[in-house]
Amino acid sequence: MPECLVFRVRTRHPADVSGLDALIASGAVAPEEIVAVFGKTEGNGCVNDFTRPLAVMALEAALGARLGLSPAEVGARVALVMSGGTEGGLSPHLLILARREGPAGEARAAERRALAVGTAFTDDFAPEEIGRMAQVRATASAVERALAAAGLEDIADVHFVQVKCPLLTSARIREATARGRNVATHDTYASMGLSRGASALGIGLALGEIDESALDDDVIGVRSDLYSGRASASAGIELMRNEVIVLGNAPGWSGPLRIAHRVMRDGIDLPAIQEALADLGFPVAGQLAPEEASRVVALLAKAEPSGNGLIRGHRHIMNDDSDINATRHARALVGGVAAAAIGRTDLFVSGGAEHQGPDGGGPVAVIAAAG
Amino acid sequence: MPECLVFRVRTRHPADVSGLDALIASGAVAPEEIVAVFGKTEGNGCVNDFTRPLAVMALEAALGARLGLSPAEVGARVALVMSGGTEGGLSPHLLILARREGPAGEARAAERRALAVGTAFTDDFAPEEIGRMAQVRATASAVERALAAAGLEDIADVHFVQVKCPLLTSARIREATARGRNVATHDTYASMGLSRGASALGIGLALGEIDESALDDDVIGVRSDLYSGRASASAGIELMRNEVIVLGNAPGWSGPLRIAHRVMRDGIDLPAIQEALADLGFPVAGQLAPEEASRVVALLAKAEPSGNGLIRGHRHIMNDDSDINATRHARALVGGVAAAAIGRTDLFVSGGAEHQGPDGGGPVAVIAAAG
Amino acid sequence: MPECLVFRVRTRHPADVSGLDALIASGAVAPEEIVAVFGKTEGNGCVNDFTRPLAVMALEAALGARLGLSPAEVGARVALVMSGGTEGGLSPHLLILARREGPAGEARAAERRALAVGTAFTDDFAPEEIGRMAQVRATASAVERALAAAGLEDIADVHFVQVKCPLLTSARIREATARGRNVATHDTYASMGLSRGASALGIGLALGEIDESALDDDVIGVRSDLYSGRASASAGIELMRNEVIVLGNAPGWSGPLRIAHRVMRDGIDLPAIQEALADLGFPVAGQLAPEEASRVVALLAKAEPSGNGLIRGHRHIMNDDSDINATRHARALVGGVAAAAIGRTDLFVSGGAEHQGPDGGGPVAVIAAAG
Amino acid sequence: MPECLVFRVRTRHPADVSGLDALIASGAVAPEEIVAVFGKTEGNGCVNDFTRPLAVMALEAALGARLGLSPAEVGARVALVMSGGTEGGLSPHLLILARREGPAGEARAAERRALAVGTAFTDDFAPEEIGRMAQVRATASAVERALAAAGLEDIADVHFVQVKCPLLTSARIREATARGRNVATHDTYASMGLSRGASALGIGLALGEIDESALDDDVIGVRSDLYSGRASASAGIELMRNEVIVLGNAPGWSGPLRIAHRVMRDGIDLPAIQEALADLGFPVAGQLAPEEASRVVALLAKAEPSGNGLIRGHRHIMNDDSDINATRHARALVGGVAAAAIGRTDLFVSGGAEHQGPDGGGPVAVIAAAG
Repeated sequence: MPECLVFRVRTRHPADVSGLDALIASGAVAPEEIVAVFGKTEGNGCVNDFTRPLAVMALEAALGARLGLSPAEVGARVALVMSGGTEGGLSPHLLILARREGPAGEARAAERRALAVGTAFTDDFAPEEIGRMAQVRATASAVERALAAAGLEDIADVHFVQVKCPLLTSARIREATARGRNVATHDTYASMGLSRGASALGIGLALGEIDESALDDDVIGVRSDLYSGRASASAGIELMRNEVIVLGNAPGWSGPLRIAHRVMRDGIDLPAIQEALADLGFPVAGQLAPEEASRVVALLAKAEPSGNGLIRGHRHIMNDDSDINATRHARALVGGVAAAAIGRTDLFVSGGAEHQGPDGGGPVAVIAAAG
Repeated sequence: MPECLVFRVRTRHPADVSGLDALIASGAVAPEEIVAVFGKTEGNGCVNDFTRPLAVMALEAALGARLGLSPAEVGARVALVMSGGTEGGLSPHLLILARREGPAGEARAAERRALAVGTAFTDDFAPEEIGRMAQVRATASAVERALAAAGLEDIADVHFVQVKCPLLTSARIREATARGRNVATHDTYASMGLSRGASALGIGLALGEIDESALDDDVIGVRSDLYSGRASASAGIELMRNEVIVLGNAPGWSGPLRIAHRVMRDGIDLPAIQEALADLGFPVAGQLAPEEASRVVALLAKAEPSGNGLIRGHRHIMNDDSDINATRHARALVGGVAAAAIGRTDLFVSGGAEHQGPDGGGPVAVIAAAG
Repeated sequence: MPECLVFRVRTRHPADVSGLDALIASGAVAPEEIVAVFGKTEGNGCVNDFTRPLAVMALEAALGARLGLSPAEVGARVALVMSGGTEGGLSPHLLILARREGPAGEARAAERRALAVGTAFTDDFAPEEIGRMAQVRATASAVERALAAAGLEDIADVHFVQVKCPLLTSARIREATARGRNVATHDTYASMGLSRGASALGIGLALGEIDESALDDDVIGVRSDLYSGRASASAGIELMRNEVIVLGNAPGWSGPLRIAHRVMRDGIDLPAIQEALADLGFPVAGQLAPEEASRVVALLAKAEPSGNGLIRGHRHIMNDDSDINATRHARALVGGVAAAAIGRTDLFVSGGAEHQGPDGGGPVAVIAAAG
Repeated sequence: MPECLVFRVRTRHPADVSGLDALIASGAVAPEEIVAVFGKTEGNGCVNDFTRPLAVMALEAALGARLGLSPAEVGARVALVMSGGTEGGLSPHLLILARREGPAGEARAAERRALAVGTAFTDDFAPEEIGRMAQVRATASAVERALAAAGLEDIADVHFVQVKCPLLTSARIREATARGRNVATHDTYASMGLSRGASALGIGLALGEIDESALDDDVIGVRSDLYSGRASASAGIELMRNEVIVLGNAPGWSGPLRIAHRVMRDGIDLPAIQEALADLGFPVAGQLAPEEASRVVALLAKAEPSGNGLIRGHRHIMNDDSDINATRHARALVGGVAAAAIGRTDLFVSGGAEHQGPDGGGPVAVIAAAG
């Protein structure tokens, strides 16, 4: 029986792999068990956030040295999902996800479920495919492969699907234009939203939350009523394909970890976080006490400014601020609300929740050890 | 018996006084009753935040038209405390504080206390006095006059002291230098912190929280162990004096409003907010329900990045971010935590808490109507 | 015979009208002669640049007090064109444009031309008209009225047409949506470009540079080959109509001032500036000497990042920078090039040159006294 | 006889080494000949600019693969000077400096001079040494070793000394504090200026421009009258030592390249650039024509906001802008002025010129091939 292990390690800067090295050196995880790394890095999380490729380069070098692989071979094997932006009080860190094969003959009750992980990748996209149905369909297909890899047969057992997806740069737009192709947008910042949106619709399609007949190029980034409640997508300059990681509670997996999720209806939806915590057996009255919080291995959430400029009827200024991008404001806000619940700041709050939960809201998942 | 009234009105932009106009037109408050206006405006809250003087100019024009006074005369009479920065989800708004004289002969039990307000102003400072003991002492003296005006004889009844204070600009530094005077700093952004710090030490001196023998120019901005737990200071380009507003629960005042406060030990101290709410009779388990939240007239809090770069042992990046000023991150964080508690975003969270609470923390006060 | 006077005064902050006051007090200009004020203010020049309304509020109050008019009446009479953004070394300042009626009987040769100014305003636009043909056509009509007011009958005599135009905010979009109307864009920053672009196309239409048959809603902001070489448009939050000021050398006007212009083909086109200077009789070899520069009353230029991400084949990063908006980079660049030519930094360089000159370039005009 | 070769290659992003690879593959330079790489990368050039370590990591990997060395061994051998910040129109690029040993027996007249290069490194600094006399003295010593390596015996032949130096981060400050040491500043952004300033004073000391008796910890960053006219220092998070590269025209070197320099007295000093060009035989009247510009291999300049907030008497807003750091404004300005002269944007303009030229100015050097 396999077990999904999750380790949370601090980073002192985006290229810091000392925590990962120490983890491996301690014997807690073997490098070949690692299937994915989620990282919060301290860039702006927008087009020119080079903390993400810096972290990827450092992780590929560190894991490559351990595994005897080139950086490209590491990247082909391990999903490296760097999410830029630690605004407000968020703390840069890595989440190391590993799959360990359990001892033979260990029998468990069929109804027992434990945290399960599966990964899959699409092929590289051409620039003109980003933010369009080609990306939606390729993502849906990859999600299905990842679910199969995790043994997640019941869609109700799926609690979080993370996708790392590409964005358009001026150079990529020029390259496509030179081939006579038009791209979904010439605004590089806007391309991040379209890429995340197309990826989320692909997740929703695979999870049965969205009907394929409702989808075409024109709804991407427009029809905010079409969304997945379990999708999380981050766009980055460092890749051209989609990388998919599914997380759920699957039969046939062992270990103490479980995952739960809720959909935050807006950026200040503390009750949604507390309900997910309650699913995992936590007492819910204000902030978790330190001994309780220590059971929480990871909180994963998406943050987004509402398109109508309001939170529960009150004006926010995220969309009108030309100094700080709206997603940066949104991450800071949701990071504050999540830290209020957990009492800790090393939380994986990622920005830009197009088609990932309702307008202005987004999914939140918690992974915790059984109490 | 006087009553302290507090009204919260939305603004659509920094110069928007339509909410104030409507309030006066409705008869809810008479213009001559208004003693102070607290405003959250949507600028950067730093040196070049011109949303504050824009709001002041608009408020002075609006109140001047009602009162038959010039803008300068309004400014001399009403304390206009604009705090820039509505990062994260914070919503721009105004808090209108008014003092209404009650009907004669209304007898109350002596032990009954209600929200009380008092204001006082220092003289204009010279640039070389900003961030130094001259500002500390003048502030302490003004706080004492404001306490007397409010009838707050017992220091334990004082829950919040707001000061609006000036900052240094390049032009002001040049002017002082031309007179042969040296200023506390040539870094205009740093001058905001020194001015807030000196003001807070003045409050702590007046409230007996700090001993005068511990104070000199060199401790300002340096000795983070010296602080007031009830001080809130905001620096702005639009004035050269300190404006002081004290808030407390005083005998001899009437009306349904009460104030409570706590000191947040760090930026994610949700329990501190919940304890202040408990003092005012609110049930505390997660976020306030809407019907409870409607009793909360105002939440006033200070936000600050911790100097050691950590929140409960985890690294934050506020002090190393050269794109977004640290106070902007801190406001977004505390705004998220406070919104998690109250379920609303029109909260008066102000940045830069030097000598206002412990390093990385700050005071929080809640004003609410009796349940 | 009328004379067009142009005064350049410094500002210490966006609300500083002391220079204007001193100018009037000196008798150099009478308040009723002032027809327009161009201002460079120190905001971000983007959506949330409140330095523009602050300057307008201060100017309206100052001129209103002199003219015995309300602020609104001043605004209806004088075109107040505030352009935010003094990046790089640009220096905040005001250009006061006045029309003085000359003494009767002063005879001049018909072929003699001097600087002439004319102004006109459109009606307020609805949010859904911004960035669309309704704005194009209303602007063209206003330009024609302004040309007539200036006596500029020969289009070849027109050297610069400045338009101040509105932008969309979240609130304005909500208002239009509530009425069942759709707006040109939901991205408030993008709305600035569409509004400037529609205004510039209107100028080009009026000046015969663009054929009306080439225009429809879909070309606005898209067909960069359609442009006016004499158009300059600035978008601001503080108005809902277009305000038009035309400048040229017209027969029937007196005084020592003349204007010349060229089209900068890119942001580093120093030769274009030097050719405009040569038209006005300046020796051109490197930077103007101080005694020559003192004859230059104003330099007016537009700045824009090229859409293909290149300047003469070399990559620029303006369009990929999510920390600083592209127009801010462009203003800093063109400000540096113009200051290299003139030897001074109080230059009116305005950002966002959609349909104002070729992609990545823009018009530049110089007003100077005869040598 | 040695020859100093300088190659300029474009980068598509901070980790792009394809231009370097192509250069080596073409046979134009052998990897073991490379002694230094100067890079302009597209980060903010401030504390959290991770484009610099990303470029260093990519260059070390690329050169290491060619040389059979580990990244650390490459770093110990080749000076990698990454300067963040390509504001305005500046274009990211690399300058590859190589030393090629010439054929034996090639005789030249003794008075003939050609471009010469020398490098040297200090030991790693402790955090508490940064921005203090320890850094000044160690830098002076390294400059002397670099001069000796280049055969630059006559100080008048030295035209540019580049230093890459470290900065303080919150983590480094904590580390020093934990050892009981105090650091020069707790403001991480300010530490960059102190480190650059101490490095420049060390250069001035070695070049005889500054007398050692004038120096102590207290003058660093304060006495702007103490400066080197040939110093250029860039601070970065990616190293803890100073790396020194000296450039001059030395006897005993061969090849077509020569270097000249001038001191820009302020940010718009186009004449200074033109005088340096004239030293190298360029005709000077406006912008270089493309065929002339092609002879210019590199322009190296420092940019800085003047401390008094003025450029030739006109206010600039660099020091009062809390959204964009002052050095970013200054680079954009000087980049515009230099591009006006050269007609090209791939120029090495670096920010923060403390003790590098007069207040608000800085050195500029041009390397060109003989005409």
